[in-house]
Amino acid sequence: MNTRHAATGPAYRRLGVAERRDQLIATAQSLFAERPPEAVSLDDVAREAGVSRPLVYRYFPGGKQQLYEAALSIAAAELESCFAEPHEGPLSGRLSNALDRYLAFVDAHGEGFTALLKGGSVVGTSRTHAIVDEVRRSAVAQIMAHLGADTSHTRLHMAVRTWITAVEAASLIWLDEGKEPSLDELRDWLMDQCVTVLAVTGGRDRATAELLRTAMAVEPVGGRVDELAARIAPLFAAVR
Amino acid sequence: MNTRHAATGPAYRRLGVAERRDQLIATAQSLFAERPPEAVSLDDVAREAGVSRPLVYRYFPGGKQQLYEAALSIAAAELESCFAEPHEGPLSGRLSNALDRYLAFVDAHGEGFTALLKGGSVVGTSRTHAIVDEVRRSAVAQIMAHLGADTSHTRLHMAVRTWITAVEAASLIWLDEGKEPSLDELRDWLMDQCVTVLAVTGGRDRATAELLRTAMAVEPVGGRVDELAARIAPLFAAVR
Repeated sequence: MNTRHAATGPAYRRLGVAERRDQLIATAQSLFAERPPEAVSLDDVAREAGVSRPLVYRYFPGGKQQLYEAALSIAAAELESCFAEPHEGPLSGRLSNALDRYLAFVDAHGEGFTALLKGGSVVGTSRTHAIVDEVRRSAVAQIMAHLGADTSHTRLHMAVRTWITAVEAASLIWLDEGKEPSLDELRDWLMDQCVTVLAVTGGRDRATAELLRTAMAVEPVGGRVDELAARIAPLFAAVR
Repeated sequence: MNTRHAATGPAYRRLGVAERRDQLIATAQSLFAERPPEAVSLDDVAREAGVSRPLVYRYFPGGKQQLYEAALSIAAAELESCFAEPHEGPLSGRLSNALDRYLAFVDAHGEGFTALLKGGSVVGTSRTHAIVDEVRRSAVAQIMAHLGADTSHTRLHMAVRTWITAVEAASLIWLDEGKEPSLDELRDWLMDQCVTVLAVTGGRDRATAELLRTAMAVEPVGGRVDELAARIAPLFAAVR
């Protein structure tokens, strides 16, 4: 480790301002992914980046809080982009792609994601909460757009918001359980939940039912939705 | 209002220690139910209870934080008791009863419930978070017991934890949306979600499927679960 830090010393001068800033943020992100924010110090970031503590302060005069918020903003932008998916093809495929990206983010950011969502962290402020809320709002808006709906579809809007929270909760539990089950299993299970929460909402709300019928009509026979219906029907058939 | 406070002045001496403490907590709870904790002062509590500020401090030397935690502990015990339901009859009936009590609590505690779960409140501390976590754990454990399962049923445990979070999220959204739809509609929709999240988990996990088949066998024909299956089947049938 020491050898490595000594070797990276000369790099001190070689990076431009923007590159150095990006490097410090990337270093901070990787540390925040491994341990809770309160267990990461500016010294850790400086050591890991192979630079001096004063240099880190030159870039982030607000210290750890500022570095944390910068790392969070970049992570938030990345998380928001997970839901950007072309508006073509069956809905289940689009949502499944978005979910894959979201879960890959959770996998990569680990502890940082947990600290972020739990909000109980010492570096959690109304500013960091606002960043997280904005990501959540954006994810919901993007899913609503895929469904061809807007916030006037109040029941559907409530359903999508509830499902997004379920995804967050499941992600936290998944991290807490040592990343069990596999990402693919987790994705499939969350997709099943998405389809059924939409179905039960459509079962009680005409506007949602109409949007769903349109969406269902382009789902492939034998595809994800069809398989799900076949898989759960026998359980319901067990009603005496 | 002034007349009323003047009139309650004499009550100052009439209440015993335990009664006075209960009265102050009940007063605080009703204020926390109306507005966020940061907008409730000890003066408000004293005025509303018709007592002096020093008297409130005599009972709660730790000031608002202590009063808040006392009110929270009592609310938490009440919330935990929502899930205490006899282990007899169809599962859907038991969970629906528990959910009715939970939602009545949400309805009664309004702002206080929101502040509690959002955790972003200025009076939110690791101690208050621990109280909330304990309620959540207890609710999950009680539902698992109704299902005849324990934490070794890892997939089912994850499903129940995820559903509890969905119930919390839906409750917060419901408060935020001016308590729309009706409590009955909200309960029915959340029960539908409960049944389907169990079904999709059973669809991919044999241990859950076995427990579910046992539970389904005592659900009445034409009852909640049967109706749900009939309601969502046509939507799935729309797959081309």
